[in-house]
Amino acid sequence: MSELSVNHLLGIKYLNKKDIQLIFETADHFKEVINRSIKKVPTLRDITIANIFFENSTRTRLSFELAEKRLSADVVNFSAAQSSVKKGETLIDTVNNILSMKVDMVVMRHPNPGAGIFLSKHVKASIVNAGDGAHEHPTQALLDSFSIREKLGDVGGKNIVIVGDILHSRVALSNIFALKLQGANVKVCGPKTLIPKHITSLGVEVETDLRKALEWCDVANMLRVQNERMDISYFPSTREYTQQFGVNKQLLDSLDKQIVIMHPGPINRGVEITSDVADSDQSIILHQVENGVAIRMAVLYLLASKIK
Amino acid sequence: MSELSVNHLLGIKYLNKKDIQLIFETADHFKEVINRSIKKVPTLRDITIANIFFENSTRTRLSFELAEKRLSADVVNFSAAQSSVKKGETLIDTVNNILSMKVDMVVMRHPNPGAGIFLSKHVKASIVNAGDGAHEHPTQALLDSFSIREKLGDVGGKNIVIVGDILHSRVALSNIFALKLQGANVKVCGPKTLIPKHITSLGVEVETDLRKALEWCDVANMLRVQNERMDISYFPSTREYTQQFGVNKQLLDSLDKQIVIMHPGPINRGVEITSDVADSDQSIILHQVENGVAIRMAVLYLLASKIK
Amino acid sequence: MSELSVNHLLGIKYLNKKDIQLIFETADHFKEVINRSIKKVPTLRDITIANIFFENSTRTRLSFELAEKRLSADVVNFSAAQSSVKKGETLIDTVNNILSMKVDMVVMRHPNPGAGIFLSKHVKASIVNAGDGAHEHPTQALLDSFSIREKLGDVGGKNIVIVGDILHSRVALSNIFALKLQGANVKVCGPKTLIPKHITSLGVEVETDLRKALEWCDVANMLRVQNERMDISYFPSTREYTQQFGVNKQLLDSLDKQIVIMHPGPINRGVEITSDVADSDQSIILHQVENGVAIRMAVLYLLASKIK
Repeated sequence: MSELSVNHLLGIKYLNKKDIQLIFETADHFKEVINRSIKKVPTLRDITIANIFFENSTRTRLSFELAEKRLSADVVNFSAAQSSVKKGETLIDTVNNILSMKVDMVVMRHPNPGAGIFLSKHVKASIVNAGDGAHEHPTQALLDSFSIREKLGDVGGKNIVIVGDILHSRVALSNIFALKLQGANVKVCGPKTLIPKHITSLGVEVETDLRKALEWCDVANMLRVQNERMDISYFPSTREYTQQFGVNKQLLDSLDKQIVIMHPGPINRGVEITSDVADSDQSIILHQVENGVAIRMAVLYLLASKIK
Repeated sequence: MSELSVNHLLGIKYLNKKDIQLIFETADHFKEVINRSIKKVPTLRDITIANIFFENSTRTRLSFELAEKRLSADVVNFSAAQSSVKKGETLIDTVNNILSMKVDMVVMRHPNPGAGIFLSKHVKASIVNAGDGAHEHPTQALLDSFSIREKLGDVGGKNIVIVGDILHSRVALSNIFALKLQGANVKVCGPKTLIPKHITSLGVEVETDLRKALEWCDVANMLRVQNERMDISYFPSTREYTQQFGVNKQLLDSLDKQIVIMHPGPINRGVEITSDVADSDQSIILHQVENGVAIRMAVLYLLASKIK
Repeated sequence: MSELSVNHLLGIKYLNKKDIQLIFETADHFKEVINRSIKKVPTLRDITIANIFFENSTRTRLSFELAEKRLSADVVNFSAAQSSVKKGETLIDTVNNILSMKVDMVVMRHPNPGAGIFLSKHVKASIVNAGDGAHEHPTQALLDSFSIREKLGDVGGKNIVIVGDILHSRVALSNIFALKLQGANVKVCGPKTLIPKHITSLGVEVETDLRKALEWCDVANMLRVQNERMDISYFPSTREYTQQFGVNKQLLDSLDKQIVIMHPGPINRGVEITSDVADSDQSIILHQVENGVAIRMAVLYLLASKIK
């Protein structure tokens, strides 16, 4: 049997192409199982997983929790926002405490880039990064690529544009790593102030004209606008953003081909994309959500098989 | 085997008399099972249920969660109050996301009347309304009737008075539908400002004198006073309310028969009823709570059997 | 088979020496099972446990929840801080409601001393006190003694000093009861304002000089400083506290023997103990956490076996 080259999923950066292939094939299997209405497999019956979220997250937490429960793992949730955890001493003490209770795997979201990497060096459990600041969000990138593959076949050679706030987006960075690893052509598109200068060193091209980007691509991955960031300190305003980088049906229909629209959610309807785009046949947004559970089942299963 | 006439439990309004009968017989069975200390049946082992609460609710959520776990369903909880869900785009996107994760049933509480109905038209899962604004709270009405039936036999022909804020109460409305469907005689009693004018069109009589209402009835269902509503904008004040519509032991004992006292909880002791009334032999308040789990098991079981 | 002399775990005060012995032997067994990577035993498959926390607690709740899940009990969580429970009418109505749903055991944390005792007289379920105000925290004391026994053998005859705010600490009180019951010699050490005058009536000596206390002891249990109490109304300030009652590596190394350092967590690093003390070989802090799950499994198992 194949196995992953890593003991943790800290970022796409640490995976190789075979790892991604293995995760996808495992997710294919789990997706088929779920679709046969067999909701639960006894695979991880003796595994305890702690979901430790130092930032609010509804969808990602729910998706992981469903994946864990469908694998029959025991699940405990720890939401630091609600707990009495104080900043500073938080991470190591909190997680060491949780791990001392013989938890096998930790799914962690943390506002600090590298929090998962740091943790993996200090604790024995297998760590899954569910988002660490502006750094990586590897399961999101995996489910995005998996969804493209499902719709268009092998990701290699496809043209993908990632639209939005590239500078602060862990989704963008993980997607770039994943897409390049699989041989896709990747452009990023967004306001100049929100595109980091070093981005081209990752083999990515910058395109500031949305129409040109859409005419070039097979798939447009529309990042979520962080309103709290936009309006306060960065150009442009949300309204300006939508005018220059939002996709509506008219723009979509004016292209000479049917591109695929993706969005990591939650959508600001009318900002990144209009409702008719979100709900159109070209949108695979809900497939992304569905595939998220299968991808997370695959990741947890493959990492757990390395524990024993 | 009999089955429900509906695929969702959106309100008592959409049920027929045979549905209620079937739910009660199924609940009888589950109650017997629970009483034999067999806490868990494997009935819904392959079903995933999401409890989505857009309003705080301790008791109802807990009751549903216990019902789900005793049926061996997989349960995920989603509390919108705690999540980053923003108003406006909430409902469809949030629920579609959750459903894309292959959830089979949704138990939802929402502040907007009709939220469950709206949802049932847009998603594939089976919806159970756990309270939608001032509209309906069907499982509460079912457990109330079930508790009357347990105490007094068939609800048909019994005299039931519902006391309190009828205008804003989903418990009142669902109870009226359920009781009338089963052939009970129903009166409502409360301050005129809190009784909607159209209520008589539902086959209900209005009685503003509490003593007369109690002398007439077999059962008094004492609604919870919403203090936040009472004191700010409506006549009467809580104190006035208690004087006119509260039940104490003296009043209860002055009647020439033993009426049954119900309350959907949580009780404001000393407001709707005094402690000695709440804890008296005539009160079936804790039976209502107990029956709530059996009724919810029955509803979930019957709806789930229509999915497959 | 032996069994506990009590039907609830309300405080160490109500246990006898054989009870503690039985809990330790049962915990030994569960710890061995967990260490063989058999995470889950079907022991409490038909038991429903409600964790009712009227105060925030991350670690204790998590530890109980893990213990319950590893025993295969059905678990429902009720956090009163988040619920709409109002003060005053809270306890009996809330818990009676939960119990009416056929819950077998209640693990409760409550700010009022004696809340668990009060409850055990009014409800049918088995009650485990997870901390009641400044009164008792019995499972903490049990895991503390269990951890000493694991490190040094039988607790009888050992010298234990408890350092800190003895006046407000349920951990201190439960530890004193447990240690004395097992025949240990116990001293308390802390600011005079934070040591109750009657404490010597429990067979405990007071030592206000930390160095002398450490020179005497085999084990120092360093209580957590409650910053919110320290800085506002009590002498000393946190800084003064640390100077007089904090343990750093230099002080530890200056002793002529290797004492054992304990802390119930969460640590204020640099206040009660410095980081190098917390992370040193002499610290058994993480063992305490690990043992907490085994001890709680033992308590729940032994109490459940008295229900049937």
